[in-house]
Amino acid sequence: MANKERLILVCNDDGYFAKGIASLVEVVRPLGKVVVVAPEKGESGKSHSITMTTPIRLNRISEEEKLTVYSCSGTPVDSLKLALHQVLDRKPDLVVSGINHGSNSSISVIYSGTMGAVIEACLNGIPAVGFSLLDYAVNPDFTASKHVARKIVDNVLLKGLPKDVCLNVNIPKLSLEELKGIKLCRQAKGVWKEDFVKRIDPHQVPYYWMTGDFDNFEPEATDTDEWALKNGFASVVPVKVDFTAYEAYQHLNQWNYEL
Amino acid sequence: MANKERLILVCNDDGYFAKGIASLVEVVRPLGKVVVVAPEKGESGKSHSITMTTPIRLNRISEEEKLTVYSCSGTPVDSLKLALHQVLDRKPDLVVSGINHGSNSSISVIYSGTMGAVIEACLNGIPAVGFSLLDYAVNPDFTASKHVARKIVDNVLLKGLPKDVCLNVNIPKLSLEELKGIKLCRQAKGVWKEDFVKRIDPHQVPYYWMTGDFDNFEPEATDTDEWALKNGFASVVPVKVDFTAYEAYQHLNQWNYEL
Repeated sequence: MANKERLILVCNDDGYFAKGIASLVEVVRPLGKVVVVAPEKGESGKSHSITMTTPIRLNRISEEEKLTVYSCSGTPVDSLKLALHQVLDRKPDLVVSGINHGSNSSISVIYSGTMGAVIEACLNGIPAVGFSLLDYAVNPDFTASKHVARKIVDNVLLKGLPKDVCLNVNIPKLSLEELKGIKLCRQAKGVWKEDFVKRIDPHQVPYYWMTGDFDNFEPEATDTDEWALKNGFASVVPVKVDFTAYEAYQHLNQWNYEL
Repeated sequence: MANKERLILVCNDDGYFAKGIASLVEVVRPLGKVVVVAPEKGESGKSHSITMTTPIRLNRISEEEKLTVYSCSGTPVDSLKLALHQVLDRKPDLVVSGINHGSNSSISVIYSGTMGAVIEACLNGIPAVGFSLLDYAVNPDFTASKHVARKIVDNVLLKGLPKDVCLNVNIPKLSLEELKGIKLCRQAKGVWKEDFVKRIDPHQVPYYWMTGDFDNFEPEATDTDEWALKNGFASVVPVKVDFTAYEAYQHLNQWNYEL
């Protein structure tokens, strides 16, 4: 690091043109050389999906001092992989993703393309953080989010992250003055309760729109991201890439595995 | 259960027409009423992605005694959600997904549409298991896989699964006689090392194909799914839906969270 300039890769799932990613670039630009590789269109809800059956395109959108922007025709994870293996000449020192337009708290982490890119970076041994603002407005105010993002990035650069752990940071829709603080949390248990809208097309064939409401299974718990966000705090959830449920071994050891 | 017939939902990511899902239907058909809701086309690598910006179509493909098959235009997770909320009149007693044409061991669990559907079922409190055969041939032999699947399903129906835990079962490309057994494992640490193929189209514009090789970070460890599969065993990894890295709290509690 002494000789090399810090290299920061920025991704998202809302597209390279989104206000959220421009805000995130503002945050990290003073900290090193910044490369953006982000989807060429909205890729929300794309989770950790990858593109294998169609080729992927990469376009250089702009280049200025210490900031180059590329768009990618694939998913957020495709963008991250292409960045690591085709765009950058070395492993970046940090990956940041977002700032997402909308929440990625609780179980939404699993559907999120923003977090897909973060987890993919983590798998490749790179410190990585995803940021999301709980605001679906066309033109959200990212002021408080930028402040939180800088605080978190400063911590990561100063202290590092534990091995195989990345961060899922969510920020409530509040001004910086209203924001109560930043809180380390666990992922709240909950589920999206689907309520598909069924419609009939002009040819009399039905189709479905996915909608849904989040159901928090533990609204009373005060150590979750949902609680923090409802109570005016930004939430920081450490996310790991090992999905093994070790605590299930005891039960599963009692099974009959004879062929 | 005494009064009601058992209801089993079957999904996959290779499409409703795949040999793997037909094999899985064969396994569960003697055990209750079976409903298949699976993608209308190959949806490998779609992870936990959902479709929000386009409507979803559902088609009834066939109906016979105790077996109804639907195709869904969306992802495996879309298929699962539509099945739960629009097709079935009650929560199924079991969800099985697969048998996938190809491995979903180690970190592949995170990219897998087959496992996406399983995890979505688990989020909805339904016992769920994904099955994958390590064979990419056009016409694989699912005999040993079917035997393993029946064994696992019998265990699930007899003993249940721990709350918030589903199973990722992989079967090596072996005959039933060659198969050494079924082994409870953890997810091996590893990563897909990408090696994009760059080509130039007839208009002189580059495009990229994603390829890759799996890099097992711990080939010596004998308690992983990778070890089991390499050594002739089917692997059973319990998978949980809480991604919180609780073990990272100690490190992260030392951070400065002041605004």
